Amino acid sequence: MAGNSFGKLFRVTTAGVSHGPGYVCVVDGCPPGMPLEISDLLPDLARRRPGQSKLTTQRNESDAPEIWSGVHNGKTDGTSISIVFRNNDQRSHDYDNISKLYRPGHADYTFDARYGHRDPRGGGRSSARETVCRVAAGAIAKKALTEVGVRVIGWVSSVGEVECPALEAEKVTLEAVEANPIRCPEPAIAAKMIELIDTVRLDMDSIGGTATMAALGVPPGWGEPVFDKLKADLAKAMLSLPAVTGFEYGSGFRAARMRGSEHNDPFVPRPDRPWGIGTEGNHHGGMLGGISSGETIVTRVAIKPTSSIPRAQKTVGQDLQPGEIQVKGRHDPCLLPRFIPMGEAMMAIVLMDHFLRFRAQCGTKGPHNGISF
Amino acid sequence: MAGNSFGKLFRVTTAGVSHGPGYVCVVDGCPPGMPLEISDLLPDLARRRPGQSKLTTQRNESDAPEIWSGVHNGKTDGTSISIVFRNNDQRSHDYDNISKLYRPGHADYTFDARYGHRDPRGGGRSSARETVCRVAAGAIAKKALTEVGVRVIGWVSSVGEVECPALEAEKVTLEAVEANPIRCPEPAIAAKMIELIDTVRLDMDSIGGTATMAALGVPPGWGEPVFDKLKADLAKAMLSLPAVTGFEYGSGFRAARMRGSEHNDPFVPRPDRPWGIGTEGNHHGGMLGGISSGETIVTRVAIKPTSSIPRAQKTVGQDLQPGEIQVKGRHDPCLLPRFIPMGEAMMAIVLMDHFLRFRAQCGTKGPHNGISF
Amino acid sequence: MAGNSFGKLFRVTTAGVSHGPGYVCVVDGCPPGMPLEISDLLPDLARRRPGQSKLTTQRNESDAPEIWSGVHNGKTDGTSISIVFRNNDQRSHDYDNISKLYRPGHADYTFDARYGHRDPRGGGRSSARETVCRVAAGAIAKKALTEVGVRVIGWVSSVGEVECPALEAEKVTLEAVEANPIRCPEPAIAAKMIELIDTVRLDMDSIGGTATMAALGVPPGWGEPVFDKLKADLAKAMLSLPAVTGFEYGSGFRAARMRGSEHNDPFVPRPDRPWGIGTEGNHHGGMLGGISSGETIVTRVAIKPTSSIPRAQKTVGQDLQPGEIQVKGRHDPCLLPRFIPMGEAMMAIVLMDHFLRFRAQCGTKGPHNGISF
Amino acid sequence: MAGNSFGKLFRVTTAGVSHGPGYVCVVDGCPPGMPLEISDLLPDLARRRPGQSKLTTQRNESDAPEIWSGVHNGKTDGTSISIVFRNNDQRSHDYDNISKLYRPGHADYTFDARYGHRDPRGGGRSSARETVCRVAAGAIAKKALTEVGVRVIGWVSSVGEVECPALEAEKVTLEAVEANPIRCPEPAIAAKMIELIDTVRLDMDSIGGTATMAALGVPPGWGEPVFDKLKADLAKAMLSLPAVTGFEYGSGFRAARMRGSEHNDPFVPRPDRPWGIGTEGNHHGGMLGGISSGETIVTRVAIKPTSSIPRAQKTVGQDLQPGEIQVKGRHDPCLLPRFIPMGEAMMAIVLMDHFLRFRAQCGTKGPHNGISF
Repeated sequence: MAGNSFGKLFRVTTAGVSHGPGYVCVVDGCPPGMPLEISDLLPDLARRRPGQSKLTTQRNESDAPEIWSGVHNGKTDGTSISIVFRNNDQRSHDYDNISKLYRPGHADYTFDARYGHRDPRGGGRSSARETVCRVAAGAIAKKALTEVGVRVIGWVSSVGEVECPALEAEKVTLEAVEANPIRCPEPAIAAKMIELIDTVRLDMDSIGGTATMAALGVPPGWGEPVFDKLKADLAKAMLSLPAVTGFEYGSGFRAARMRGSEHNDPFVPRPDRPWGIGTEGNHHGGMLGGISSGETIVTRVAIKPTSSIPRAQKTVGQDLQPGEIQVKGRHDPCLLPRFIPMGEAMMAIVLMDHFLRFRAQCGTKGPHNGISF
Repeated sequence: MAGNSFGKLFRVTTAGVSHGPGYVCVVDGCPPGMPLEISDLLPDLARRRPGQSKLTTQRNESDAPEIWSGVHNGKTDGTSISIVFRNNDQRSHDYDNISKLYRPGHADYTFDARYGHRDPRGGGRSSARETVCRVAAGAIAKKALTEVGVRVIGWVSSVGEVECPALEAEKVTLEAVEANPIRCPEPAIAAKMIELIDTVRLDMDSIGGTATMAALGVPPGWGEPVFDKLKADLAKAMLSLPAVTGFEYGSGFRAARMRGSEHNDPFVPRPDRPWGIGTEGNHHGGMLGGISSGETIVTRVAIKPTSSIPRAQKTVGQDLQPGEIQVKGRHDPCLLPRFIPMGEAMMAIVLMDHFLRFRAQCGTKGPHNGISF
Repeated sequence: MAGNSFGKLFRVTTAGVSHGPGYVCVVDGCPPGMPLEISDLLPDLARRRPGQSKLTTQRNESDAPEIWSGVHNGKTDGTSISIVFRNNDQRSHDYDNISKLYRPGHADYTFDARYGHRDPRGGGRSSARETVCRVAAGAIAKKALTEVGVRVIGWVSSVGEVECPALEAEKVTLEAVEANPIRCPEPAIAAKMIELIDTVRLDMDSIGGTATMAALGVPPGWGEPVFDKLKADLAKAMLSLPAVTGFEYGSGFRAARMRGSEHNDPFVPRPDRPWGIGTEGNHHGGMLGGISSGETIVTRVAIKPTSSIPRAQKTVGQDLQPGEIQVKGRHDPCLLPRFIPMGEAMMAIVLMDHFLRFRAQCGTKGPHNGISF
Repeated sequence: MAGNSFGKLFRVTTAGVSHGPGYVCVVDGCPPGMPLEISDLLPDLARRRPGQSKLTTQRNESDAPEIWSGVHNGKTDGTSISIVFRNNDQRSHDYDNISKLYRPGHADYTFDARYGHRDPRGGGRSSARETVCRVAAGAIAKKALTEVGVRVIGWVSSVGEVECPALEAEKVTLEAVEANPIRCPEPAIAAKMIELIDTVRLDMDSIGGTATMAALGVPPGWGEPVFDKLKADLAKAMLSLPAVTGFEYGSGFRAARMRGSEHNDPFVPRPDRPWGIGTEGNHHGGMLGGISSGETIVTRVAIKPTSSIPRAQKTVGQDLQPGEIQVKGRHDPCLLPRFIPMGEAMMAIVLMDHFLRFRAQCGTKGPHNGISF
């Protein structure tokens, strides 16, 4: 069904399960001749890795990628890039008790319903371990986007009730985001978030939050007008990530309370830009009619609290009998910090896909003069 | 680029522009032998039609569908269904002033950026008139879903600050939704919404809102585990509609403030269901791991205020010079009431697509006994 | 199932049936700004039209295309191009006797097997009338290819036992092909073919043949290395046409009898070409490893004799009882002359698709200097 | 571009290069609960393996597959199946002389033209080593097809001028095919083929041939009527294999010389079949209108002589200067015997894909009673 692939021209396919020998990621459609090394993948993989701090799970996954094809002598060769990750910390005995009982909030039951089977050793194909592939593919997309002047940046904008005020993406630096383990660029807010997560963790519970994902430097014209609107593909990309329960762009759900006279961003001349136009304000989150406007693309996602909590929970089993489950293993009390590289990756993959789609239809110069890649 | 098609197995393709001779909708993959008449399409088309009340635009579009293929002697014949709509109220003179100035909030500028061209007579391919095709396709999907016991229902859950409290989808009837022009099933709230829209309209402004879309009777097992999660496809479907700025399912953005112990819905035996299982509560909105759980699927979308407002607005033109635009024509002061059939249509299309995907992989009986279509 | 669409980036969708109100063709992905008028579609539609000569069916179809969208002021606007054809010669009474008996060689029975239904008025969705859409889409692809220096040309290379010797595609002109009703550029051979078809027609029979389809000016580098080899997409394109029973490129089936030392085309310097390389001989038909080599692309297809013949034929009916059928109506004694524009169209669609795929991945300049679009 | 994937519902993705660490194959869409073991893959992999006899290359590839996901406790679990092959015989020094000169008949030059780069160690992504993945995926498809009563069988029907007379596929056994190294089920013909290949090999040359691929037990109704005709998908599948230069089904190119009265296969009652119908003769190769008819599906492909021959050949280099190349390494004097499992694999993949498409649209019972899976 191709449910394991994403993107039309920059196409990512993943395979593998949490308790098998490893994962495979195939990236199809990357332009040839782009410098690419294993080291380009490592920073984002490190940001995704478990065990970075007490805020995250203490599982010790080895996220060492091996590039098996598509790169030669330090450059992409235009053929499909395959990346292999071996699993090496498969404590399946931690999962023994879940083999017969359905974990609340997890896909255990729905896998049984669809397939008549699920992996009794853990999440199997539904495990968030799969995102290691997406983050690697996203690192390639990010690198390619850099060549056309586009930068993707994400940060944690809330944890539970602790909210970071809206920031201008243009002013957020990777350094500020990475300066603390929660990945919120405002140090005072970050401290409160960390404190809250710590409280929750000690309470044997978990907590949700929101993250902002932005893309700077996207020129006007990326996206398609009807079903493959840029906003639609971004929404799908984000909701395809585990634990994401909501998506908005620009003013998002706040738009529902606004009037048109307030929400419409007036166009203004911007002689400093090659294309000469901009808007006052960015309620439209950088997309109009599903196509990029030249303003910063801003999206926000909601992430639910980790479903795996150390407390005993009521549930039923495969035998349809009620029971109680205690999910063992090591789990993140809050998914947000490790989500940032995943969200960035999916945003980068969507943008790279639409860059290639733009280039296919409109050429490298674009229909307007002044836009040049 | 296939940006004009949606769905993998139940596949909808649309074509046409607002000021051309008409629109075409092609529905590919519908099972053969299903009773289908023009009259099955009319109710939802009537709900989408402009001019239903003073809440909506007074444009008089003829939404009379012609079925050109795929239906014979009152039944689908299994080949592609093509539906044609002729445009007959093309007051392009209403749009004269927009041919050189970019309307704020519209795709005028982004079309120029992508294509070096836009339709000076109106929205062209970006016009919401295109949704007439989606609503017709959605009516077919709804009819097919009925055969497997699934019902899709939507309603307006807020207009501006006027919010309808959360309703149990199981108790919302089409009659209650259709009992008032705003399509909110709570009469007292509906009255306030209508009053607010009236105020906004007289103020030459527009206002946003939110809508809830629910699907009842979806058995467990629809959806795919990785990129084509049911929640991801629903998010894309909704964000592909004009003016939608946000999507959430289940607890959605509220999940960001919740703890795992509160958010996890415990499984409970449900001997009254063929599959024997249910959950207490539905924070998960009927989807776990991207696959339906057997609980009602609940999603909510945010819709921005209509971009076309009768007031003069600041903007720039194709010549990059500042100017002022007065958008003439007849526009909805609030998009919400006409959105309901559109949102239902997209939800039905996604569900029908995933039903066929389930059936392809797992057969009609499904992997479990007890589930039968 | 998307079985009604072809192409990934230059994507053609068709809808409609032989005895319904009309056909619709949607062309997605065409670059914007390309001059296009109805008149660009007419020559190839005229070549496909029935009733051109006594060699073809005397049915009088109106093949007058209406462009409903995607073209504005004589140029493509980058959005999907929709073309509508109305059917006006629906002599369904000619088909009365086929409503219960299966025509040999036709899809009557297989449609019943798949869909439990077929159109009793004629071929329905299986009718070759559908190719009117493909020819229109092909005319657009041809026009676009002209802009990058590519020309597609086809001709009849055999009818029954009458074979035209292999011709150099570079020397075949459209004028020579169109100089006689059989579309074989060698007048003496053409005369023999026409004589043979006449004999067959008077004998109330039909006859098969082969056609050569060539593309000149395709630069090296179009095509993908694995599943979407250019040769593979061309094979699918040709076999998707009605009555095509075989496909070969370059030396084709003759290669099966050759030795490597004879078949391998040695590379030679070609300083007259921007890319500097060519081959001696063209056994490889312009494609190596599924990618264009810069030599002329040469393919050949086999076409079976028309299944509809005026003689009585043995068959069975829906009741599984044996019977005899006399297919009435007006049918081509030989499909070859009308096939030429269809084959050219499909070749052009494949090439345009792969041009866009090349441009998406490699940009307009290509990885080599010297190749410029 | 997704050029590394094949199939819509039963979808195969391959990755890897000849001189990298290994290959990866991902099979998406396989029904859950099907028994599958490594041992199911081995027989066909052994048939594809180099070094089986003096007729094939003496390269010693290890084709030991590892299943990394999608199979649990001996059964498919419904999620994507990933299979990994490690390369272990990478004699890249054999290829030293090809790093600057283009091998005639190979993709060396066309890769340079497309990507500005090719793998100097060998075929890279264009290497036929990639077919190890297809054969593994095909073994899975074959196993699944067996469950619905379908069997795929292929054999060598000619080598050079040595032709095997047409055989009835129903009478060809795997044992007879495997009884000799050339895989022609007629022992006397096989002996002549082997003799010819031996002569050619000693002459430092190579030779082409043809292979027949048949599918028995396919019920009527598989395939789609327009672009995704079963014959079209089979043609693409076959032409996507290396060295295939032609495809035909049923009467194929012979149809070009036939008359309709001779070519049309009359329908006859077949009370011994669940669907009650058959044809006299099988010129239509089991497909009418692109949909299976219930008769045996018969296709034939042409395969060119191996491009790698031990003789010195004229060519040019990357510097556009003429030169002479001696292709070292160990190569098959005739590709035919190793082609059989590859051709069978692609045929099985196409059929499995169309089985799932049929089941998606028409359910497991099909529109007719009497057909049951």
